[in-house]
Amino acid sequence: MLGECIENVRKNVPLVHNITNYVTVNDVANVLLACGGSPIMSDEPEDVVDITTICGGLNINIGTLNKRSIEAMFLAGKRANELKHKVLLDPVGAGASALRTNTAVKLMDEIKFDVIRGNISEIKTLALGSGTTRGVDADVADAVTEDTLDSSIRFVKDFAKKSKTIAAITGAIDLVSDGEKCYVIRNGRPEMGKITGTGCQLSGMMTAFIVANPDNMLEAAAAAVCTMGLAGEIGWDHMQKGDGNSTYRNRIIDAVFNMDGKTLEEGAKYELR
Amino acid sequence: MLGECIENVRKNVPLVHNITNYVTVNDVANVLLACGGSPIMSDEPEDVVDITTICGGLNINIGTLNKRSIEAMFLAGKRANELKHKVLLDPVGAGASALRTNTAVKLMDEIKFDVIRGNISEIKTLALGSGTTRGVDADVADAVTEDTLDSSIRFVKDFAKKSKTIAAITGAIDLVSDGEKCYVIRNGRPEMGKITGTGCQLSGMMTAFIVANPDNMLEAAAAAVCTMGLAGEIGWDHMQKGDGNSTYRNRIIDAVFNMDGKTLEEGAKYELR
Amino acid sequence: MLGECIENVRKNVPLVHNITNYVTVNDVANVLLACGGSPIMSDEPEDVVDITTICGGLNINIGTLNKRSIEAMFLAGKRANELKHKVLLDPVGAGASALRTNTAVKLMDEIKFDVIRGNISEIKTLALGSGTTRGVDADVADAVTEDTLDSSIRFVKDFAKKSKTIAAITGAIDLVSDGEKCYVIRNGRPEMGKITGTGCQLSGMMTAFIVANPDNMLEAAAAAVCTMGLAGEIGWDHMQKGDGNSTYRNRIIDAVFNMDGKTLEEGAKYELR
Repeated sequence: MLGECIENVRKNVPLVHNITNYVTVNDVANVLLACGGSPIMSDEPEDVVDITTICGGLNINIGTLNKRSIEAMFLAGKRANELKHKVLLDPVGAGASALRTNTAVKLMDEIKFDVIRGNISEIKTLALGSGTTRGVDADVADAVTEDTLDSSIRFVKDFAKKSKTIAAITGAIDLVSDGEKCYVIRNGRPEMGKITGTGCQLSGMMTAFIVANPDNMLEAAAAAVCTMGLAGEIGWDHMQKGDGNSTYRNRIIDAVFNMDGKTLEEGAKYELR
Repeated sequence: MLGECIENVRKNVPLVHNITNYVTVNDVANVLLACGGSPIMSDEPEDVVDITTICGGLNINIGTLNKRSIEAMFLAGKRANELKHKVLLDPVGAGASALRTNTAVKLMDEIKFDVIRGNISEIKTLALGSGTTRGVDADVADAVTEDTLDSSIRFVKDFAKKSKTIAAITGAIDLVSDGEKCYVIRNGRPEMGKITGTGCQLSGMMTAFIVANPDNMLEAAAAAVCTMGLAGEIGWDHMQKGDGNSTYRNRIIDAVFNMDGKTLEEGAKYELR
Repeated sequence: MLGECIENVRKNVPLVHNITNYVTVNDVANVLLACGGSPIMSDEPEDVVDITTICGGLNINIGTLNKRSIEAMFLAGKRANELKHKVLLDPVGAGASALRTNTAVKLMDEIKFDVIRGNISEIKTLALGSGTTRGVDADVADAVTEDTLDSSIRFVKDFAKKSKTIAAITGAIDLVSDGEKCYVIRNGRPEMGKITGTGCQLSGMMTAFIVANPDNMLEAAAAAVCTMGLAGEIGWDHMQKGDGNSTYRNRIIDAVFNMDGKTLEEGAKYELR
């Protein structure tokens, strides 16, 4: 079934509007092409409404936010909501600055997100972000490990339910939940943390996955996580003596490019909780 | 003769000012270096007049335009015109949003472009853009194929003549025309469409080619198209098992880096119509 | 001792705030990860004070400056100074436009930089920049070669002393001086000039090196220069038939990723003058 999710991306070629940071934007575009989607980038308020209108999904990433792009995020998000397009939030650095935290929280208040994807500390920030109103128990450890798994699963389910979204927390172990079910995913390699933007890439790709699998979004989000993690494993297998993080970056996108449903199905390591 | 065009780039090392999108800007810079040119990027209105003054050519790409960079495009374009520098327009996404269409059309109205390079739908948008005033027959198919070749050639010649520019329409078959003659180019590979920014790269490189070949701009523009397409073929020949679009991106720029006049001359596949 | 400097980076994982150009920003992030540091990018005035507060160092690169990012540079720089964080200036294009020159000079006037790193013409511009007040003898050749070495060393020492900073001038021969001592470094390869952003990468990496070696900044800056140059040599050794500047870019970052203290110690080519 996960395999079908990526096949649907390749079949439907979803057009994804990305308002994303300029650090990793090229890799986001290339990984979207690699998985079978099609990327457009635009962050000018006067441009984004038109652009998001012709797309199927919107990926909002606050990694190098500025006042202009923040305005664009709200305009595009609202337009995408009107059109019932899929919308994803990647709250990069929420918790690291007031502007990032406040922007992410305000985005959650004013825009309906189909998926929110971040690391545990970003999602914890969002859970606490609007004070007591959301009331999620964020008393969870700062890393999802086998030891903290049970409480982390409770946390992500609670956050997803209260935020009325699919929540994806990625790290050593990845969790994807709609509030009821939780995919616990163990693909990937620690060396992926030595490449800038694997999280941003995953967010872009995940947007394409949910657009192409509208009736099956939880599984599609999990399939995107497995695709990225498995690509990290396959890419690592292709590493040769002298290779480092820059070549690894290429190898991972290459592996996404070559991923088919069967490979994903066989390589995905997950359990449902 | 095409071979001479790239040799002239390597000999003259043209400095090219790029006002270009942040998605593919790094690849544009590296491909400019690969072909023998030298890139500078600047998009702040207060900076661009000085920067374009010290360059030989200006490459305007509206891929991630914003109000600041649009202002910079007009300032730089007018200054480049004053200095009789070569100026190229890449109307990325014209037709996809009102801002992009209007900006591209206004740029054409206020700035003299030596070359306009885009895909067929962008160029069709420009042909129709200013209403009836330009009056180009844009009743042309949405892809240049062997079946639609004759009408596409008529279209590009008509557009080039009425716009007083060299027009380059790139796709499965590439057309480059000054209104009288038309190069029909069959280099390249379909897989190039799976990499973000091969069009942007071509625009940057083409600017260097016309700067280095001022008396021979039509041929220089065609030589740039052949260089990119042939690099796509050579790069593909270097692909190995497990490689994908990210490695292919590197391979293409590498092939430009290694391209010499003789290789280009022998590998270029074109006819004059 | 140089080897210890990179080992300290890997041990301490310094967090570096980069306000840098969008051309080479992805490579800056990846090389920071490669050497053992951790990158954050932010250039919005409302964001930078918070971001720089949680970092150990600040890397200011004016490569694609605009009015917003310039404001951010001053705010972040002043905050970093308050917190006694390490701050580095990369005056990309100083001398090429009035805005760049004036911004770099004003930054030097208002912010205390621990290191200023640029090419000879940028540093000469800064030396002359604020008129007679700095009074550095900038009557130095436009390239540091064996022939011009003595006068270049005098120049860099004079500039460093008068600017109360460590000055790093990189080129065919690299000079790093605190005003008293001068490292003369002969690592690197000329082909590095065919890749965009090796200088930007070095500035990002150098910031991590001085943060991780606060009591030994001159040596740390020299170690960063040797690391980059040696990575250029090692990367070149890994080049194969058909490879070009794009693959070389990856190879250099890969070589930084694999660099250890022993390799650096043995491969560094320098003398103290």
